[in-house]
Amino acid sequence: MPGPIQSIERAAAILRLLARGSGRLGVGEIAESLELAKGTAHGILRTLQGVGFVEQDRDTGKYQLGATLLHLGTSYLDVNELRSRAINWADALASRSGEAVRIGASLEGRVLVVHHVFRPDDSLQTLDVGTLLPLHATSLGKVLLAYDTTLKATTEAYTRRTLVTQTAIKRECAKVREAGWAAENGEMISDEAGIAAPIRGHGGIVVGAIGVSGAVERICEHDGSPNPRLLGHVRDAARAVSRDLGASRW
Amino acid sequence: MPGPIQSIERAAAILRLLARGSGRLGVGEIAESLELAKGTAHGILRTLQGVGFVEQDRDTGKYQLGATLLHLGTSYLDVNELRSRAINWADALASRSGEAVRIGASLEGRVLVVHHVFRPDDSLQTLDVGTLLPLHATSLGKVLLAYDTTLKATTEAYTRRTLVTQTAIKRECAKVREAGWAAENGEMISDEAGIAAPIRGHGGIVVGAIGVSGAVERICEHDGSPNPRLLGHVRDAARAVSRDLGASRW
Repeated sequence: MPGPIQSIERAAAILRLLARGSGRLGVGEIAESLELAKGTAHGILRTLQGVGFVEQDRDTGKYQLGATLLHLGTSYLDVNELRSRAINWADALASRSGEAVRIGASLEGRVLVVHHVFRPDDSLQTLDVGTLLPLHATSLGKVLLAYDTTLKATTEAYTRRTLVTQTAIKRECAKVREAGWAAENGEMISDEAGIAAPIRGHGGIVVGAIGVSGAVERICEHDGSPNPRLLGHVRDAARAVSRDLGASRW
Repeated sequence: MPGPIQSIERAAAILRLLARGSGRLGVGEIAESLELAKGTAHGILRTLQGVGFVEQDRDTGKYQLGATLLHLGTSYLDVNELRSRAINWADALASRSGEAVRIGASLEGRVLVVHHVFRPDDSLQTLDVGTLLPLHATSLGKVLLAYDTTLKATTEAYTRRTLVTQTAIKRECAKVREAGWAAENGEMISDEAGIAAPIRGHGGIVVGAIGVSGAVERICEHDGSPNPRLLGHVRDAARAVSRDLGASRW
């Protein structure tokens, strides 16, 4: 069986590179970052520009991601089964809990937010769909980490409360598996907390996580443990989505 | 100067194909649609799967778009200058008008929605970001069509009111240029209307459109013309975004 096609892999690497940092890079910077000859990088960039995957700034000559990717990303959501099965349950969870709801699946060692329902109030909120969150510092991530042994946590400190050793993270994951849910309390953003539970697909395999997040004083009790009413709503929603995905025993 | 790289163009064609229709295709269907040898299509698909751009369904073996594209699409939005300059004005337009606001730019002969602010009420609304709308049947599209002579309108009928001849569309575009704004009245969806105005960048070039849309009885007067107060708000917002983008004279 022939191996992967090098030019496509290089094109993908360029797109990933552009998705990081400031998002605008010159051909020289791209070639250097990926250890490509400048002519090679240029040929790939011109091809990507031709298909609308990158755009070139007229003034600076720098490259950035192109509009076609937005359309492809949205089309991905349209066929994403986890998201389509979960949408109604996520809406119901947001209205029952009064909190913002997010659904995540693992992507490249992080949590990809595939659905986000705003907190049902008038506050200004930013849509998190498509954002990548850290596994070890979020309740969604802890769920994914606890049930997928192939995932490896990073240990960056976001706040003073972030778990920053593999031992602490492993202990937390064991607790998550034991309890069947995960919580975060100021571990990614100070004063923000979250509760999440696993979504299971066919055969009971964990395919994602659903959870609520918001201000610590609303999500947690005085002792820092998650509000039991919210926890119940999150676990009910996770079970309902899992049933819809065909996980018969959960 | 060397030509575009064929394998990357073919990979892009496969991704576009998967973004259409049901979103799930077998290798045979893909090969046939794009007139590729089945082995060639398979090699490209395996490479795309390796970089997370496509996923293969375990049960059916069919391919669909992959999660990495959602992240790339979101990253595109983060660097999109039109959107970042327009976000605050779009929020202000939604609160002043009480209607949903969308910002569009042209992509492949259609309108790509790059920003969407929900109508400020409690109604259930679906996010349109990343969606492609027809040029000839929407107020956003008519603006883009009127100011970009390289664009070509299609003529599908969405309702009995859609403009379905090139002559009618040309006449409408002349009116849009004369007035400086465009309206739609039940031309894409019965009972829905919209008003849009051009967003200009450096040198006054039209780079996008901003507009409100909603129920005909709210957007239009009894004679079918746009509500003058809403029209004023839309034109003010378009001018404000244009100023921020460096279009000094508008």
